[in-house]
Amino acid sequence: MDTHVVIMAGGIGSRFWPMSVPQMPKQFVDVMGVGRSLIQMTVDRFSAICPKENFWVVTGERYVDMVREQLPDIPVEHILAEPAARNTAPCIAYACWKIRQHYPDANVVVTPSDALVLNVEEFRRIIGRALAFTENSEAIVTVGIKPSRPETGYGYIKTGYVVDDEIFKVSSFREKPSLEVAREYLQDGGYLWNAGIFVWNVNTIMSALYRFVPDMTSIMDEMSESFYTPYEKETVARLFPTCEKISIDYAVMEKAENIYTVPADFGWSDLGTWGSLWTLMERDENGNAIVGEDVRVFDCKNCIIHTPDLKRVVIQGLEDCIVSKHGDRLLISRKDHEQKITDYSKD
Amino acid sequence: MDTHVVIMAGGIGSRFWPMSVPQMPKQFVDVMGVGRSLIQMTVDRFSAICPKENFWVVTGERYVDMVREQLPDIPVEHILAEPAARNTAPCIAYACWKIRQHYPDANVVVTPSDALVLNVEEFRRIIGRALAFTENSEAIVTVGIKPSRPETGYGYIKTGYVVDDEIFKVSSFREKPSLEVAREYLQDGGYLWNAGIFVWNVNTIMSALYRFVPDMTSIMDEMSESFYTPYEKETVARLFPTCEKISIDYAVMEKAENIYTVPADFGWSDLGTWGSLWTLMERDENGNAIVGEDVRVFDCKNCIIHTPDLKRVVIQGLEDCIVSKHGDRLLISRKDHEQKITDYSKD
Repeated sequence: MDTHVVIMAGGIGSRFWPMSVPQMPKQFVDVMGVGRSLIQMTVDRFSAICPKENFWVVTGERYVDMVREQLPDIPVEHILAEPAARNTAPCIAYACWKIRQHYPDANVVVTPSDALVLNVEEFRRIIGRALAFTENSEAIVTVGIKPSRPETGYGYIKTGYVVDDEIFKVSSFREKPSLEVAREYLQDGGYLWNAGIFVWNVNTIMSALYRFVPDMTSIMDEMSESFYTPYEKETVARLFPTCEKISIDYAVMEKAENIYTVPADFGWSDLGTWGSLWTLMERDENGNAIVGEDVRVFDCKNCIIHTPDLKRVVIQGLEDCIVSKHGDRLLISRKDHEQKITDYSKD
Repeated sequence: MDTHVVIMAGGIGSRFWPMSVPQMPKQFVDVMGVGRSLIQMTVDRFSAICPKENFWVVTGERYVDMVREQLPDIPVEHILAEPAARNTAPCIAYACWKIRQHYPDANVVVTPSDALVLNVEEFRRIIGRALAFTENSEAIVTVGIKPSRPETGYGYIKTGYVVDDEIFKVSSFREKPSLEVAREYLQDGGYLWNAGIFVWNVNTIMSALYRFVPDMTSIMDEMSESFYTPYEKETVARLFPTCEKISIDYAVMEKAENIYTVPADFGWSDLGTWGSLWTLMERDENGNAIVGEDVRVFDCKNCIIHTPDLKRVVIQGLEDCIVSKHGDRLLISRKDHEQKITDYSKD
């Protein structure tokens, strides 16, 4: 089986200011304080699935050097630079068109670079299961996360009939729900979170893209004439930005017939908010989650403190707060105000 | 009149961690966010009283370069390095013995380097008044601050009879009082804060030291043979640390007869605590006192924020707190816990 992993690493993570800033988005940050950035943890997670030579990273031009530095085992020519952000469909298409030229039967896993998985073994089992299914079928598989709470921040997948052991036909995709609807979904049991992890044969996704977004595939076809030549960079710089900004969900998933899902329960988080990060981190007996060298807390409860580049931090008397210092920026905020951080911190 | 100013700059300001750290004590910090450190403001304050060639700074050896850098107008040979901290009496003696050799009739003002004066004009008038008095008398004058609150953190001066217009005989010195006693002092009106600003003729203070601390003056006499020679540094390094640790208050002020005071009201603070600093700083409509480049506060009240080396700070939801970031250290604490900061932050 010719498996390839495509890591989408173009995000700028503005909700995690100042831990994540455009110069250094969260996928490149050691968010968990474990000595590995999120993108490094993503690669680690897939390392048992295929060799490093089969990894691909699509990222913004400004992050190419950071990817090279953090992921020295990935072939340099597999780091694809988007000259402009065009959402996930063009990003995925670029990688798949490129893979197809050298690996015409590749099975591809597409993954975000900035999510967290707690149970890596189960994760690998699920991905293996999906790959086995797509190897011999024209299936587009999206990994569906079994919901653990009535989350309103994610899109949902409604499962249909069971196809093959753990594989279900997708009945439909649902937008981010209201709290009431999210509670119904949780109760119902037939709904999964859309985690943005996809598995398919490269020919399957290309067929779908040719059918549903022909303007984009024309651009990809034209671009692909330059692939693996000295003209690739210049050609991509000229043509890629002419793609429409469109997500793979909207371009393909919500339209195609052959969509399947594997319900999964491997402790997944998209680390979308400080609050979600706090719930996933190790916490002291007062509920404080701390990443930093010499962080001393007194009379503090349920705080998240992320100050890896400071030598000594003393915090007294904070409850339910976020403290984050990165570079020359500092944030102190109540957790329940975190949705305002992007506004508060903007230029 | 041959006036000299001696600035005592040996303190390490541990109560202001992390704004003030042993590598960079508060006298060298731009505490008020005005572009001048406290020692620079001290020099500015005295600049109308005598030329810069008559300024002397006594400081720890490790701070000599910092003094040179911050006070380039002060003659390098007037920066006296204490090889070890021995409290104020040896510090003052070293400066006075040295001044006496070249300026045998010098009138000397001794001042801390890290206090704040709001009304500089009145300050100069008071110092001028004290200097005029000591020029023609063997008086030891200490500037007494008219108390504005029942402060328990300072020693007090009990005034005696009036001598000459604004000059009073000192009746006695009183230790830091209880709150009850401090209230009585305030009510009484005859008590002043001891600000550690002294004025005297160099011969007057030397006589007093010869009388009350003869062991120390023997050391000073021996040391002084090397003054202004290539052997000074080595001799001081050998002898100065053999002095007893003793304050000028204990060595002289509480024992001598010829002690006088000028009651003064020029908006003085020793900047001893974050709380006292907060009361002296400009504050926004919510009572927040801020020193920093781009500090954005939301839902904050009565905070003191001192983050001059950060480019952007966002703080939401803090009340009555101190936030201070300097170098690789960060403090967040409730103001009413500030007496614990030294403990919390120690090595």
